[in-house]
Amino acid sequence: MQNKYVSEAVIRRLPKYYRKLQELSQKGVESISSQALSEEMDLNASQIRRDFNCFGGFGQQGYGYQVERLKNKLGEILGLDKQYNVIIIGAGNIGRALAGYSGFKAQRFNILGIFDTDKDSIGTKINGIDVYDADNISSFIKQNNISMAFICTPASSAQKVCDILVENNIKGIWNFAPADLNCPDSVSLENVHLSDSLFVLTYRINNN
Amino acid sequence: MQNKYVSEAVIRRLPKYYRKLQELSQKGVESISSQALSEEMDLNASQIRRDFNCFGGFGQQGYGYQVERLKNKLGEILGLDKQYNVIIIGAGNIGRALAGYSGFKAQRFNILGIFDTDKDSIGTKINGIDVYDADNISSFIKQNNISMAFICTPASSAQKVCDILVENNIKGIWNFAPADLNCPDSVSLENVHLSDSLFVLTYRINNN
Repeated sequence: MQNKYVSEAVIRRLPKYYRKLQELSQKGVESISSQALSEEMDLNASQIRRDFNCFGGFGQQGYGYQVERLKNKLGEILGLDKQYNVIIIGAGNIGRALAGYSGFKAQRFNILGIFDTDKDSIGTKINGIDVYDADNISSFIKQNNISMAFICTPASSAQKVCDILVENNIKGIWNFAPADLNCPDSVSLENVHLSDSLFVLTYRINNN
Repeated sequence: MQNKYVSEAVIRRLPKYYRKLQELSQKGVESISSQALSEEMDLNASQIRRDFNCFGGFGQQGYGYQVERLKNKLGEILGLDKQYNVIIIGAGNIGRALAGYSGFKAQRFNILGIFDTDKDSIGTKINGIDVYDADNISSFIKQNNISMAFICTPASSAQKVCDILVENNIKGIWNFAPADLNCPDSVSLENVHLSDSLFVLTYRINNN
């Protein structure tokens, strides 16, 4: 049922539902109607039902959604029931911030190594994670069953890093470098272009 | 000419054009046809012309776009010709990473202070920027002509911080907290929901 076509917009809403359900679950809310969920999320109720119907729907008509059950279902759809071995490439500001975030471990993202070209960083640890020489990315991926990489390098080296990751059959790339990477469809790529986001904000400030 | 309605999708493409033109400018490219630009950007040429027409168009038919001129024009539209006094709220991993990024200064974002509630952080400096007590946000905004704030707090305190910023007439909020903030339309809000982005990636890895 997950194989039918799901639009980009629906995919992008899934984590928002998941986040809201986590919040409701933490507050002890056991069930919620699509109407109440729509008010919480600033989406209309029919949109929510349509989104959930892409995955077979999760509600019992008239009873609303069971919060914990729905959260777990969405978590499975998002692949959060699985474990991911991760490497970070680039030990700059963003690479360090991601390595320092302790929440990843609870979410089953195991950051196993950080790679850099800077001789002063190599051999150090960040939040207990070793910083290795970037020359060893390929062998490390093979030896450690790495499925995901976070690219936190400058724009100028991001494509080269991406090519190495692709050659080594990485499954997913989370790219923080301000570069549009050329990456085959067989590898999932998700960009966080921070400066693009900041410039949308400055646009809005000046055109609000 | 900037007052006519510009769609969200067009606004989100503007920083990508700007980034590409910066790259071309650095490579010494002086002019580029919309066709060549479209190939560089994986967008079709008519889309690019339509996007630019929202702002009056910038091309001379048959001559292509002057790279430097177009870059500067887009920079103005994005508000990058102006200066912004900025505060960061939250001296955790992301707040530190943003404070540590030296590129902001070159782009005329002046980070004047970082605010936190943690007594051990208050009084220290990050990349030369003072960390102050979060109790003093209001007075600091007034005294330092702050127009923009980066929220880097946990989700649980983000709304409270947002309310303080709004009360003090901040113009723009760049929100990194994993929370959907309630913010009046008079204040521009741009979210970077990192975990949402990561979960889109895990979804794709499992449904590629």
